[in-house]
Amino acid sequence: MSQIWKKISEEPQKVGYKYVTIKTFEMPDGQQSNYTTWHRTGGQNVAVLALTPDRQVIVARQYRPGPERVLDEIPGGDSDDGEELAAAAARELLEETGYASDESLIYLGTACRDAYTNETDSYFMALNAHKVTDQDLDDGEYVEVALISIDQLLENAKTGKMSDAVAVLMAYDRLKELQDA
Amino acid sequence: MSQIWKKISEEPQKVGYKYVTIKTFEMPDGQQSNYTTWHRTGGQNVAVLALTPDRQVIVARQYRPGPERVLDEIPGGDSDDGEELAAAAARELLEETGYASDESLIYLGTACRDAYTNETDSYFMALNAHKVTDQDLDDGEYVEVALISIDQLLENAKTGKMSDAVAVLMAYDRLKELQDA
Repeated sequence: MSQIWKKISEEPQKVGYKYVTIKTFEMPDGQQSNYTTWHRTGGQNVAVLALTPDRQVIVARQYRPGPERVLDEIPGGDSDDGEELAAAAARELLEETGYASDESLIYLGTACRDAYTNETDSYFMALNAHKVTDQDLDDGEYVEVALISIDQLLENAKTGKMSDAVAVLMAYDRLKELQDA
Repeated sequence: MSQIWKKISEEPQKVGYKYVTIKTFEMPDGQQSNYTTWHRTGGQNVAVLALTPDRQVIVARQYRPGPERVLDEIPGGDSDDGEELAAAAARELLEETGYASDESLIYLGTACRDAYTNETDSYFMALNAHKVTDQDLDDGEYVEVALISIDQLLENAKTGKMSDAVAVLMAYDRLKELQDA
């Protein structure tokens, strides 16, 4: 049964650069069980599907330490404490790629990408984005800006070449309309 | 730039029930940087989008320890060492829900859901699945089987009510065809 479990305790601990927590729950049958999850503190993740006026998708091509290969990620990162998510998405787009849109970002939705993290990923779409400045990368960021077609984006999302593929699902109907326009 | 980083070392350690590893890379500019990622050993994840003959989607409704809420997950789990992924997906479907299909599973694709894990998720589709037996849950699994419409599945995938939403993107065109059939 899908009853809600009762959390008895949790023990966040820092491992390297991340927090991991062991949560103890009382299960529906009264037994106690432990689960190990990533523990995100502070702001949550944001990322933005940004398109140029000629409908090219702006991607942040970068090596990724988990899969150990280069992915064509959509620009994104952590929101700062207290920062609005849409503002954080616009900021990350500008810092990672030097692109910005004069229009308001479109909120696509918030995903739960993994059952073993409290992290959420909120996705936005930016239309008519223009290059306005140079990249302003954080220390340790090595991002190559690339422009790809909507077709290539759909292909990447379906074949594991980006980690925020849920954003593409959320924007799917809009992307198809843009392709047909 | 998106050059490949050179891995210098990694230190997997067990934290609770999972392995976390700190990887040291030599970056494109010669600096060394450390990254903390989940470290999956053994078989990888599989999950299956299974539909009944009348196009209801079979979901494994369950409380999830990361987001601490109930999600309508598609059935899935770990493949065993040496087990074929399609066989693992069919096995997980049967164990978690008691449903099976006489037809071969359709391979949808393999996702990278997070840039900070070496875990991969391979997705399959099962058509014309029938209830053939009772659930056979692992210790600590509390799964309620539910049937939902394709419309509801699409809604769930776009609104964070399942963690394997990428499978829905991979099956999107097939799902739309089934809706229109």
